[in-house]
Amino acid sequence: MSLKYIFYPKSVAVIGASKIEGKVGYAIMKNLKDFNGKVYPINPKYDEIFGMKCYKSVLDIDDEIDLAVIVVPNIVVPKVLEECGKKGVKGAVIITAGFSEVGNYELEKKIKEIAKRYNIRVIGPNCLGIMNTHINLNATFAKIFPPKGHISIISQSGAVLNAILDIAPLLNIGFSKVVSIGNKVDIQESDLLEYFKDDEDTKLVVLYIEGLKDKRFLKVAKELSKKKPIIALKSGRTEMGKKAAKSHTGSLAGEDVVYESAFKEAGIIRAYTFEELVDLIHLFSTQPVIDSNDIGIITNAGGFGVLAADSCVDYNMKLPNFEDTTVDKLKDILPSSATISNPLDIIGDATPERYKKVIEVLSEDKNIKGLLVILTPQEMTKPLEVAKSIVEVRNTHRSLKNKPLITSFVGGVSVKGAKSYLRKNGIPAYITPENGVKALYKLYKYSLIKVKEDYDEYVEKVKEEFLKITKNNKEIINQLLQNPNEYNAKKLLSIYGFPVPKGYLAKNEDEALEYCKKLGKCVMKIVSPQILHKTEAGGVIINPDNPKEAFKKLINNAKEYAKKNNIDNLIIEGVLVEEFIDRDKIEIIIGGKRDDIFGSVIMVGLGGVFVEVLKDVSFGISPITRDFAIQMLKELKSYKVLEGVRGRAKKDINFIIDTLIKIGVFMDIHKNIKEIDLNPVFVFNENEGGCIGDVRIIK
Amino acid sequence: MSLKYIFYPKSVAVIGASKIEGKVGYAIMKNLKDFNGKVYPINPKYDEIFGMKCYKSVLDIDDEIDLAVIVVPNIVVPKVLEECGKKGVKGAVIITAGFSEVGNYELEKKIKEIAKRYNIRVIGPNCLGIMNTHINLNATFAKIFPPKGHISIISQSGAVLNAILDIAPLLNIGFSKVVSIGNKVDIQESDLLEYFKDDEDTKLVVLYIEGLKDKRFLKVAKELSKKKPIIALKSGRTEMGKKAAKSHTGSLAGEDVVYESAFKEAGIIRAYTFEELVDLIHLFSTQPVIDSNDIGIITNAGGFGVLAADSCVDYNMKLPNFEDTTVDKLKDILPSSATISNPLDIIGDATPERYKKVIEVLSEDKNIKGLLVILTPQEMTKPLEVAKSIVEVRNTHRSLKNKPLITSFVGGVSVKGAKSYLRKNGIPAYITPENGVKALYKLYKYSLIKVKEDYDEYVEKVKEEFLKITKNNKEIINQLLQNPNEYNAKKLLSIYGFPVPKGYLAKNEDEALEYCKKLGKCVMKIVSPQILHKTEAGGVIINPDNPKEAFKKLINNAKEYAKKNNIDNLIIEGVLVEEFIDRDKIEIIIGGKRDDIFGSVIMVGLGGVFVEVLKDVSFGISPITRDFAIQMLKELKSYKVLEGVRGRAKKDINFIIDTLIKIGVFMDIHKNIKEIDLNPVFVFNENEGGCIGDVRIIK
Repeated sequence: MSLKYIFYPKSVAVIGASKIEGKVGYAIMKNLKDFNGKVYPINPKYDEIFGMKCYKSVLDIDDEIDLAVIVVPNIVVPKVLEECGKKGVKGAVIITAGFSEVGNYELEKKIKEIAKRYNIRVIGPNCLGIMNTHINLNATFAKIFPPKGHISIISQSGAVLNAILDIAPLLNIGFSKVVSIGNKVDIQESDLLEYFKDDEDTKLVVLYIEGLKDKRFLKVAKELSKKKPIIALKSGRTEMGKKAAKSHTGSLAGEDVVYESAFKEAGIIRAYTFEELVDLIHLFSTQPVIDSNDIGIITNAGGFGVLAADSCVDYNMKLPNFEDTTVDKLKDILPSSATISNPLDIIGDATPERYKKVIEVLSEDKNIKGLLVILTPQEMTKPLEVAKSIVEVRNTHRSLKNKPLITSFVGGVSVKGAKSYLRKNGIPAYITPENGVKALYKLYKYSLIKVKEDYDEYVEKVKEEFLKITKNNKEIINQLLQNPNEYNAKKLLSIYGFPVPKGYLAKNEDEALEYCKKLGKCVMKIVSPQILHKTEAGGVIINPDNPKEAFKKLINNAKEYAKKNNIDNLIIEGVLVEEFIDRDKIEIIIGGKRDDIFGSVIMVGLGGVFVEVLKDVSFGISPITRDFAIQMLKELKSYKVLEGVRGRAKKDINFIIDTLIKIGVFMDIHKNIKEIDLNPVFVFNENEGGCIGDVRIIK
Repeated sequence: MSLKYIFYPKSVAVIGASKIEGKVGYAIMKNLKDFNGKVYPINPKYDEIFGMKCYKSVLDIDDEIDLAVIVVPNIVVPKVLEECGKKGVKGAVIITAGFSEVGNYELEKKIKEIAKRYNIRVIGPNCLGIMNTHINLNATFAKIFPPKGHISIISQSGAVLNAILDIAPLLNIGFSKVVSIGNKVDIQESDLLEYFKDDEDTKLVVLYIEGLKDKRFLKVAKELSKKKPIIALKSGRTEMGKKAAKSHTGSLAGEDVVYESAFKEAGIIRAYTFEELVDLIHLFSTQPVIDSNDIGIITNAGGFGVLAADSCVDYNMKLPNFEDTTVDKLKDILPSSATISNPLDIIGDATPERYKKVIEVLSEDKNIKGLLVILTPQEMTKPLEVAKSIVEVRNTHRSLKNKPLITSFVGGVSVKGAKSYLRKNGIPAYITPENGVKALYKLYKYSLIKVKEDYDEYVEKVKEEFLKITKNNKEIINQLLQNPNEYNAKKLLSIYGFPVPKGYLAKNEDEALEYCKKLGKCVMKIVSPQILHKTEAGGVIINPDNPKEAFKKLINNAKEYAKKNNIDNLIIEGVLVEEFIDRDKIEIIIGGKRDDIFGSVIMVGLGGVFVEVLKDVSFGISPITRDFAIQMLKELKSYKVLEGVRGRAKKDINFIIDTLIKIGVFMDIHKNIKEIDLNPVFVFNENEGGCIGDVRIIK
């Protein structure tokens, strides 16, 4: 059922309404007093509340009920929800706490079952409630009802939501739908995002997330972000890496990295701190976005112009020259001592009139796509009058319609009033010019976001091919996956066409000799499920003079290693004799990790010190399209190495892209594989392909 | 003469005092009305100003004058300053603008000369003036006189200073000496830092710098920072790299990098934005520093606890477990539903009393060295009452004396008053918990600052040795420096004992053959002052089969390169035949650059992609002490490579340290060398030393 009845109910029943101040049921009744629809208080203890008739049960009401707000004690919730079901109530907001968050899983399950049985859509339990400012619906116990606007917000924390609502009036941030999502027994983030996509009163969506359990999230967010900006703050960023990971990829692809990738692919703008979240909300709800980093800066103090210019370099924003006509006009407006350049110092004695005229002129300059107006209180400065001029020109000047105009009035006592005035009139006022530049950068950055397309012809082709291979080689694949040691794992990959070195598993000295002769220059490696770090265990010999001796040595080294590391019952499956890849190459690492929510996460980075010392890796969620694989590579700080530095040849980047795509598909097909490391992958020169040096598969 | 007369004058003459509102001479007279000493207005136009007798000239005053504040038109300044000299005035603050900043260098020079002649210490010209709150001296035309306190500030921009003064009353930041330093015709930053070192009313020094011209700065700042914290904001961070640099070191050691190094070595805490500057001032002027990163967080909202914990990981701050006794005490205070952990969630219904008790308990916990108290307005929250509790416990609880206590009341309308109350009472109130954590990190970071000692026994020994070498080899050194091509530069370095490969300059094919035979495996390189990028020019041949042919080829390649690059009159000085360094090694780069203010700047980094792609280099200013050289190396992201990664041998780090020290001394001795690149420097395994692969010297 649609969420329409939750956000646009005609009638609301408050189950657990109260007359006693301090009670949640009282706060909600009070908050609903301006609601445009009908309100029915329900509490068997009372006959009337706030002058309204009070009912014993929702079943007693002689009207259709769209939405029930439930605030009764936790153990009573199933009973009243059951009654809602019988009554035909369409949506319920369960504010009551005391469910899964305190370990009461059974009680929560019961609610889920009832809601499902009666087809009631439920928000909560354990939440602050919901709001829709457009119909004066405040079904929360929050103290503050924010200004009406076009931001819809979903928060997993009532307190964080409260803090935002508390700030809203000061910045004049207007909201549309406000949702405290609670334990998410029924309605998930994706349901709400889907609804907001077509909601005309929603133009910007804001999320506070602690953790998702919503597999549809990524897909729905992708669709929404094509129409409307989404801003998200995800907390618990740094809980990652706590779980013991067995592969490189596993240890590097912590929970937060996966969220980061998901947000990036879905086109979600991520805030990293609460301050940034508020800044972004303020910005995106008042200013148009720009697809250019060319901005103009106006200041009445040179020092702050320089500080703002510093920030422009930090954030890759540009300060283009003004058009010639602009320069001419500015000459007429400014005192002769002014230097006409960008940042434009309009001198310490700048009047409100001068600010206004300069903004008008710059707003018409085609080189300038956004404006930052700086003021600092000096001897003659009239901050409030300047603020009024800015608002006036903002509201009347057509050329400013598609240009963001933001301000930074730097100071305290003298600029307080002016800043309030600007904010009340929809113009962000940042505490410093640097924050202003950062804000313009974010408007610009939004225009660079590209939602990752899920459909890619080549990926589909690979998928089809890999599925066929899987079907045709079912038995051998299952067998290899039973014991995915290096030899078997490489065999498995080679079935799918991944290039691996020629190799044989030698069971004794004679076989070792035979294979070495066959291969020429070769490498010998111990194969044992108990030895993961072969080099450490003395388990690798390159180009042995005497293969028989080398075989013996590898076995002995393995035994010694086992003794030292208290490994009982050492299993040695043999010695892998492999051709030695003796040509111009670089080493990279490619990996995959399964994530419960988002699926297969694919990683790539340059090998050696790049991954081990510098942790220079990048991530993507399968399907990895061609465009996205390129983006992943370009995100690497060491990307230039692939293109060839210091006279070295360019490497086969296409081979890397292809391998990334294929490992994504491979992981999607083999859902029992938890982690995979291809490390190293040798990449040859351009058009020469590459080869997988070693593989580790963790089930 | 001491600056005492400037900051603690008994009598002040205002030359250019005015009765007309809006004039600077009026504003200054008004600002001086509460001054604890005597004020003498001077203006030939008036007989009295503000009820005081007005003099025609400073010479007419029948009293000693300690300080003259000069606001007459620029061309009149020399005349009145001359009169001040004759009168025996000890200090002058020249507020008047219109000197070097607008190109009037001659006028400024005249002032300098008069000041010197009469031994008058001068601040300015072109400044806002000075203040000393401790004697109610406000010799500026600023609108705001900040609260009295212990911060002394020097600003190169009147507007930036104005902005800070404007914020001060809101945050209750108290100042001691306020100096707008202007064009610095006489008094420089170093003079003021020297004075503040022994000024009892100064406990914290703040600098806003646009550019120094003060060679004593580094030395004086080092001395001061050992006694008192110095915070600096330097603008124009990003002007660097504009000047064409000929060496790697030159292009990487931009102006800002040099300031960064200087600040680091002097123990100056650097702010990168204006917001950060204000935050730091607020913090350091109200809270004790800590030498531990163990903090405790108290919150009434779980979500903000998590966000604060995220920030702790970002800033490497730790959240230790509480002591057992703390846990017991907290159990008595908190509701049973509270989980006792750090961050400590004291639950949404936390009362002022609960906040107070919890802070008391945690302040006694020995594991906890600093406290962040978070509040967000919820249903029952009383922000102002909580603020009052916090101030009370702060002021009365002894255990808090050496522990910083900061707050973050997250919200808007509901917490405004509480935040003001906290700030007025000397407790920082940050807008978000993340900013709070960052602040505690900065208090901690200050304790880690180590001022670089200038004296180092080993450096002195090297200096002595190098001076002797220079003296004894004067002629040959001068000759080599005349034309510092690779061959000569290496010869020069070898005179000082730097290890270079064995090598000979071949003038013809026969010599090439002879030298190659002598050396065994060798490298041949073209030597030409016009060919800087030898590899690009095909100017390097490794281990030639036929040295005669190789010689010919190198000459031909050089000629072709010259043709392609329009180099006329190609000078070929020969072919350097050098032993080939064929052993286990890594490549690093060491460089030096001369800076006008700070002297020899030394750079180090790993070679190849590390310097070229990742720009992973670090800097120091000569003298490079042993400890500091180690610090420089440890700052490299790639430092681990030197220690040996992936089973590779550890490299000779001592050789690198020694070379850094020696290049510092070498640069200090050869003041005509502008830039030097040792690139690559081969570093062998531990205890095996290294060798300089190539050198470029730019005069």
